Amino acid sequence: MRDVYVVSGGITKFSKASPDKDFRYMVKEAFDYAMNDVPKLTLDDIDGSVASYFSDHFTRQLMAGIMVQDYLGLCPKPSRRIESGGATGGMCFQSAWEAVASGRMDVCVAYGFETMSRVNTWKGNEFIALASDTNFDYPVGGFYTGYYAMMVQRHMYEFGTTVEQMAAVSVKNHGNALHNPYAQYPMELTIQDVRRSEMVADPLTRLDVCVMSDGAAAVILASEEMARKLTDKPVKVIGVGTGTDTMRLADRPHGDVILLPHENREDYKGLKYPGVHSFRGGRMAAKQAYEMAGIKDPRREIDFVELHDAYTSSEIQTYEDLGLCKYGEGGRYVESGASALDGEVPVNPSGGLLACGHPVGATGLMQAVFALWQLQGTIKKHFGNDRLQVKDARRGLIHSHAGTGTYITVTILERGF
Amino acid sequence: MRDVYVVSGGITKFSKASPDKDFRYMVKEAFDYAMNDVPKLTLDDIDGSVASYFSDHFTRQLMAGIMVQDYLGLCPKPSRRIESGGATGGMCFQSAWEAVASGRMDVCVAYGFETMSRVNTWKGNEFIALASDTNFDYPVGGFYTGYYAMMVQRHMYEFGTTVEQMAAVSVKNHGNALHNPYAQYPMELTIQDVRRSEMVADPLTRLDVCVMSDGAAAVILASEEMARKLTDKPVKVIGVGTGTDTMRLADRPHGDVILLPHENREDYKGLKYPGVHSFRGGRMAAKQAYEMAGIKDPRREIDFVELHDAYTSSEIQTYEDLGLCKYGEGGRYVESGASALDGEVPVNPSGGLLACGHPVGATGLMQAVFALWQLQGTIKKHFGNDRLQVKDARRGLIHSHAGTGTYITVTILERGF
Repeated sequence: MRDVYVVSGGITKFSKASPDKDFRYMVKEAFDYAMNDVPKLTLDDIDGSVASYFSDHFTRQLMAGIMVQDYLGLCPKPSRRIESGGATGGMCFQSAWEAVASGRMDVCVAYGFETMSRVNTWKGNEFIALASDTNFDYPVGGFYTGYYAMMVQRHMYEFGTTVEQMAAVSVKNHGNALHNPYAQYPMELTIQDVRRSEMVADPLTRLDVCVMSDGAAAVILASEEMARKLTDKPVKVIGVGTGTDTMRLADRPHGDVILLPHENREDYKGLKYPGVHSFRGGRMAAKQAYEMAGIKDPRREIDFVELHDAYTSSEIQTYEDLGLCKYGEGGRYVESGASALDGEVPVNPSGGLLACGHPVGATGLMQAVFALWQLQGTIKKHFGNDRLQVKDARRGLIHSHAGTGTYITVTILERGF
Repeated sequence: MRDVYVVSGGITKFSKASPDKDFRYMVKEAFDYAMNDVPKLTLDDIDGSVASYFSDHFTRQLMAGIMVQDYLGLCPKPSRRIESGGATGGMCFQSAWEAVASGRMDVCVAYGFETMSRVNTWKGNEFIALASDTNFDYPVGGFYTGYYAMMVQRHMYEFGTTVEQMAAVSVKNHGNALHNPYAQYPMELTIQDVRRSEMVADPLTRLDVCVMSDGAAAVILASEEMARKLTDKPVKVIGVGTGTDTMRLADRPHGDVILLPHENREDYKGLKYPGVHSFRGGRMAAKQAYEMAGIKDPRREIDFVELHDAYTSSEIQTYEDLGLCKYGEGGRYVESGASALDGEVPVNPSGGLLACGHPVGATGLMQAVFALWQLQGTIKKHFGNDRLQVKDARRGLIHSHAGTGTYITVTILERGF
């Protein structure tokens, strides 16, 4: 397995763009930004790409990836589309990593996009609901915020998690985003603001849920040889993991908790698992990534996390899946300030999906771009201020998540050669 | 780069299935067949999968791949979906190859499916047309058989290709399929039959065009170590290549022909290129695959080809892109019998898409399964007769193709360790 490095990245500001903003222009903007950040890299050096977008419904165009490939000037080079629901961006990153790790390519671009504002929010929610079981869940009114509300109701019942703990995630992430110029909804909020916002599915309010967005992101991955030519601030991919789970919550099997390197079977004695309270696929992804990276205790060896907080509740659930705290302790974890910008392990210093937006195919790549800049120590250069720079960050973890946890990726990045 | 082997494969009979035939059942049938052919392989040995299907419209379900992953008993192992139009299956194969070549997995399953008969043919053609430019081509009545008709009109104009030569492809492929029990439409045809069948888009008749199908295919790829444990009839992946081209034919740039290893610039002096007569992406894919495999002259070093004959015309165009003959000579090539079962390089001994059917996500994997069986010398075992067995086949080439040549993959397989 060859070492693979992230050498550059770019994103657009996530927003509800004007409807004439084509997905091609958005990807070009992100791609050009990434190219300009490694001036020694030419188009000729790029061996191929992987395209990431979620739904043909949002783009109103099948095979939209090839139109981007053309617009970036990358035809006739290799490309392909990766799609795995909400985890599409994270999966795209890992697919580009495989292209370089296998020796097939020396430089591979991972680009992702989504244009969700062309349809109204109800229609958009309906499209997204088609990513649940259309024979069993969708016909009885299933939609995603509903599924997440059910999951966290169980979490509250089993572990005493409170709505205020959930709201604390929203306050933290929207607050972090005040210093991130790429964020769609930076906001100074209180717990009360979150609880008083419109109820979507009990207990999740509007401010517990991420928004629909338009946006794009691009990441450039390279072999060690190319990385040494291109940059003196490389970031190495040291761990990749992916997990899956059944489409329907009701189908999730009984069984043992997948243990992370620092956990013991005793830790979860008597735990009622499953467990729609947490994500088996996330555990699997984290376990694989930690093992590959040689990480024995993520609480001490990871300096920050950018995770898929489509819901405040899923950030809490994901603390547990990543082993930042034990199952059931996620609510108290955020409450303690452990995941704050100045906490033990800053989680979503960028503002996450809740505040940055969630243009599905771009989201997982956005996380990679922010993690790259954190590990390079270049947040100030790219954000215009260093308020979100995690000091001396050596290792970061990015986490992408689909459906009700059906596809989950975890990737671990490390500063330097 | 680690060596990667194909150790097993399975397919369903392609057909217009009954509407209650779920895509999950179809993949399970193909997967079980593949598992049974390597009895030493257990579910536990499988490290992950790559799912392949073309359109959410046909499945009427987003993230259908994860439902298959669950049904095969592969959760919570890694998976992801690959989609690249008509080349989806070929791209899925290459993605699974990367997973093993990179060292990430030791055993990876590539599975693909499509259920196209749930919608009527007009609706199906409309869905497929959404894979052309929906702002420029689709609104003016663009549909795929039309695009291919335009391309071959140019081929006829420039090179004197005849409709009888095109019909000869149909006669050959439907005829080969008479001995393939998996084929949807085995038929004994004459040139006249093809020309007298219903006109779709001049000069392409119904028998010049492949059909809509339901079906699934699965291929199991493994590292050398695992392959040695599992089989004494391994097939090695020795070359992979992928090319792309612009979505719209009108956008294809002027420029030099991409030369294959055995060609010279002089061969194409004065050629009017582009060139909607042929596929730049196919040339790029072939060039990469030949270079990786160390193939100097495909006409002598490839023993058979399974290529993407969605149209008789595209088989002719693809002979040229693969370098089996020079640009412009494809019509005469089929007429000469060179691509017949007993010709120089048998092309589509299985019957190809024209006769086997084309359930998009499964098609490229079907080619891999047939090529595996050819190279193992096990056609008799799997087909019940050896009429289609290419004698002493040592190397085979598979070719998957999207849109009007927007994504194209070429993969070269070789018998033995």
